[in-house]
Amino acid sequence: MDVRDLGEFGLIDRLARALGAPADERLIVGIGDDAAVWRAGDAYVIGTTDTMVAGVHFLPDRVSWRDVGWKALAVNVSDIAAMGGAPSFALVTLGVPPDTAVAALDELYAGVRECAEAYHVTVSGGDIVSSPVFTVTVALMGEALVSGGAPLLLRRDAARPGDLIAVTGPLGGSAGGLRALLEGTQLEHPSLVEAHMRFWPRVDAGDIAVRAGIRCGIDISDGLVQDLGHICEASKVHAELRLDRVPLDDDLVLAYPQEAASIAATGGEDYELILVGPRGAIELADGALRRQLVMPDTEQLTIVGEIMTGEANVCVLDASGREVTFETGGWDHLRRR
Amino acid sequence: MDVRDLGEFGLIDRLARALGAPADERLIVGIGDDAAVWRAGDAYVIGTTDTMVAGVHFLPDRVSWRDVGWKALAVNVSDIAAMGGAPSFALVTLGVPPDTAVAALDELYAGVRECAEAYHVTVSGGDIVSSPVFTVTVALMGEALVSGGAPLLLRRDAARPGDLIAVTGPLGGSAGGLRALLEGTQLEHPSLVEAHMRFWPRVDAGDIAVRAGIRCGIDISDGLVQDLGHICEASKVHAELRLDRVPLDDDLVLAYPQEAASIAATGGEDYELILVGPRGAIELADGALRRQLVMPDTEQLTIVGEIMTGEANVCVLDASGREVTFETGGWDHLRRR
Repeated sequence: MDVRDLGEFGLIDRLARALGAPADERLIVGIGDDAAVWRAGDAYVIGTTDTMVAGVHFLPDRVSWRDVGWKALAVNVSDIAAMGGAPSFALVTLGVPPDTAVAALDELYAGVRECAEAYHVTVSGGDIVSSPVFTVTVALMGEALVSGGAPLLLRRDAARPGDLIAVTGPLGGSAGGLRALLEGTQLEHPSLVEAHMRFWPRVDAGDIAVRAGIRCGIDISDGLVQDLGHICEASKVHAELRLDRVPLDDDLVLAYPQEAASIAATGGEDYELILVGPRGAIELADGALRRQLVMPDTEQLTIVGEIMTGEANVCVLDASGREVTFETGGWDHLRRR
Repeated sequence: MDVRDLGEFGLIDRLARALGAPADERLIVGIGDDAAVWRAGDAYVIGTTDTMVAGVHFLPDRVSWRDVGWKALAVNVSDIAAMGGAPSFALVTLGVPPDTAVAALDELYAGVRECAEAYHVTVSGGDIVSSPVFTVTVALMGEALVSGGAPLLLRRDAARPGDLIAVTGPLGGSAGGLRALLEGTQLEHPSLVEAHMRFWPRVDAGDIAVRAGIRCGIDISDGLVQDLGHICEASKVHAELRLDRVPLDDDLVLAYPQEAASIAATGGEDYELILVGPRGAIELADGALRRQLVMPDTEQLTIVGEIMTGEANVCVLDASGREVTFETGGWDHLRRR
């Protein structure tokens, strides 16, 4: 048996079991959420890590090193946002082939720095090693908001029947950008490529959500349907998703009009948040998000479905209430196709 | 210019400068020590990360996956020990070629678990990605002992003229093991290979050192002379190292009698600590280390030199006071040789 037979999620399950149950009572959230959370003194530290491998997670000949640097940190910032926390300190590890141009690494670090400054993150250490393939791994720590001694968090296992499902912005732009990059038409679709490489993680929305009383959320990295599925599995609830209500990226609709809705539902790496909570909390968060904008009428949270009892999976419905199925449910680089 | 022209340390310097000065006042120790330290509430978090790449940092056909798992975590535990802290939570990232046998990863994780249990570390998350070459990256967090609201730390920049230089155990076994592995004679030297793959990081010694009032230390990863050099550079002091006083691994002396002293001085990855402090603090720590042993007469801290004013480098002397030079000053996988 090799890892293609298990895929990423099968492997994570197997290895998590191999580690045994965590014994440390300071651990609040362990393997299986967007990030881990543990207590340190009177603080709650949030920790996450994500890797990008050249040729697997990005095509070095089609994207800029600066964008790779931004994205390497931004995907981690999004994990902290998906827990409702604020990012703080990062460790950056590079695996570099010895013939890598120093200029490429300068550009990469310029991108890391831009993202770090935008999100008040300090790079405080890391590691640089020789590797036959270029890899960049970021471990990012953050802190949870604390109220009455307890951390306010967005967890995957906190969805309850009757909760509404909202998303924080238009979807599908990133997957459209990936498609353009793979097809070599990236110069025709700069805004889609930007959505794929230069997205803005929703730390603002995560923070407002926990303050508004929302306790369940995830970021959209694998794709809306698949990530909502992670919430259903962790919370043991059913979700009904209304495809016609999913907000679509404008440029995605222009570029791929026939497939835009399906791309928005299944394409990954939007790095908007899915927030799940009672109507009152969702409306409170929506109002707070609108007030922080220059154009306060811009739609913020879009309600795209509802949590109910039933089988722990996602049912996607079209405008007329008919069930929609998709060929692929998101990305798994490891699994045999 | 490519990265071979700069080497690992040149690259770290360049990229650290590219990031600019850290702006977050919570950062206590940043890039340039064994680990970073920052304040979180009333706690002081210590964070470090280290990577192992197959074919670069280990030979998959000559060592066991279980030992690779142990070592991947243990090198990080040693970084926390080198700051005087206690390790707590780890994030483990695997880059795996899709045809990797699941049995190999099971073994790797068994080794990670053994080290985690031995050092009270909880693996709380991570990432698994597809990669053309096998890599394992661990990010490990820990906490510093706090006294009167301030963290007690072993820093590289805290050596003062007049301080003594001590090491926590015999050296060179790991480099001897690496040599045996590279020569294919690993079956003849099992204890040296064990020193290379299955070493025990000195969390006990780091903890006792900070309690005894020692404030300067580093772990021996690059090699005694080179790591002591890092202390000299960071503290802007000179060090005189007495080669004849360096404790040698018994099996190293048996295997390579002619070169044992030179291997112990320059070979890397011993993961013992170099502790630098006033005589009284060193003696206090030595006594405390002896008391925790079943055989209390076993030598613990060995004084191998002294800090003085002068050029920020290390001078190695033999028993008759003559200066000794070595061809290589430690490991740098990236640098053009």
